[in-house]
Amino acid sequence: MTSASSRPGLFTDTGVFICFEGGEGGGKSTQSRLLRDALAAEGYRVLLTFEPGDTPVGKEMRRIVLSPETGALAHKTEFLLYLADKSEHVETLVRPALDRGEVVITDRYVDSTLAYQGAGRALDAGELEEVAAWATGGLRPHLTVVLDLEPEAGLGRFEGRDRIEGESLEFHQRVRQSFLDLAARDPEHYLVLDARDSIEEIAAAIGARVAPLLDRAVRG
Amino acid sequence: MTSASSRPGLFTDTGVFICFEGGEGGGKSTQSRLLRDALAAEGYRVLLTFEPGDTPVGKEMRRIVLSPETGALAHKTEFLLYLADKSEHVETLVRPALDRGEVVITDRYVDSTLAYQGAGRALDAGELEEVAAWATGGLRPHLTVVLDLEPEAGLGRFEGRDRIEGESLEFHQRVRQSFLDLAARDPEHYLVLDARDSIEEIAAAIGARVAPLLDRAVRG
Repeated sequence: MTSASSRPGLFTDTGVFICFEGGEGGGKSTQSRLLRDALAAEGYRVLLTFEPGDTPVGKEMRRIVLSPETGALAHKTEFLLYLADKSEHVETLVRPALDRGEVVITDRYVDSTLAYQGAGRALDAGELEEVAAWATGGLRPHLTVVLDLEPEAGLGRFEGRDRIEGESLEFHQRVRQSFLDLAARDPEHYLVLDARDSIEEIAAAIGARVAPLLDRAVRG
Repeated sequence: MTSASSRPGLFTDTGVFICFEGGEGGGKSTQSRLLRDALAAEGYRVLLTFEPGDTPVGKEMRRIVLSPETGALAHKTEFLLYLADKSEHVETLVRPALDRGEVVITDRYVDSTLAYQGAGRALDAGELEEVAAWATGGLRPHLTVVLDLEPEAGLGRFEGRDRIEGESLEFHQRVRQSFLDLAARDPEHYLVLDARDSIEEIAAAIGARVAPLLDRAVRG
């Protein structure tokens, strides 16, 4: 078993794996696209992807897990469905691109599942990390950018929210704290930014932190 | 971590949990129905259920995993989808019925996943057992009946086979051996029967083995 202070996982020698995490409304998709565009402009081969749902089976999972029609799911069931999506995503998209030396940027990864299903649902965090590490072959991002925001500021109106977004404010506060705790345990691989800063400021901070990682990425 | 000779899990104090396992064509559904009818005739409250698919989310999983249209799935993805089905099945149907003191008879359970995804797909067996034990809360059957049959005898014609049935004969031979190995490791909780015996002989052997378990089950 793994102690709470360490974290199972491996970092690839080829390619660069960058992940954006955080609650709703923090600008993950905006910043991940900006980073993709900036790196592509410098000639790097970049794969921009997301979880859950960027594979055929992942789309089915996403539909089942997020649909209000699904109703109550056992907490472990929900976690396992997210892991099925991650397993497929890593095996068919992320690992092959890293093996080719590309930069892979993903909008959400394992930390989202640990935060939403762990902090949110009161499952044992150490067990979730172990099962998640098994599902992803232990693959961890070289850098995880956490765009941190108070849940009150990030959540939209209640109408139109999906099953996860419709959880209580307290739930989303636990989720936020979980992202911050994961980052605090491993500062070498995390960058926490205030999502209320300007888009340009955030993009510049990310770019500065990504630059030293790029020597293992291919161009052209 | 768990050694290969032990097996993680727990057995409930109330209710009786009986599982039928084995390859295709061995008579699992026939024998599980006969046992259900025999116990119900004696006044026991019996839940007859199956995996994969006897919950709303399980039906979706079953459709995705077994459909030829799904195409290739990463092996871990397939395993995690089966575990999501099991987690939901245990949490919403099996555990509540056992807590009420009922006899629960399931047509396939964890061993099928270990056999088909483990022996069949060359994933690490010890890891699969641990992840499966996590997904099911460690719940194990008081008795698992393995209806053993040569794959050549049990498989139907190639037309109409689903994704799993359409695997090679060698795959199904590994699956068969896996069921026998699981039984050999824990004879106290297993009954291996030759599926070529008559329906009546098999039902009688099962009934004799089940009888001493029934003192923890409720009637009426």
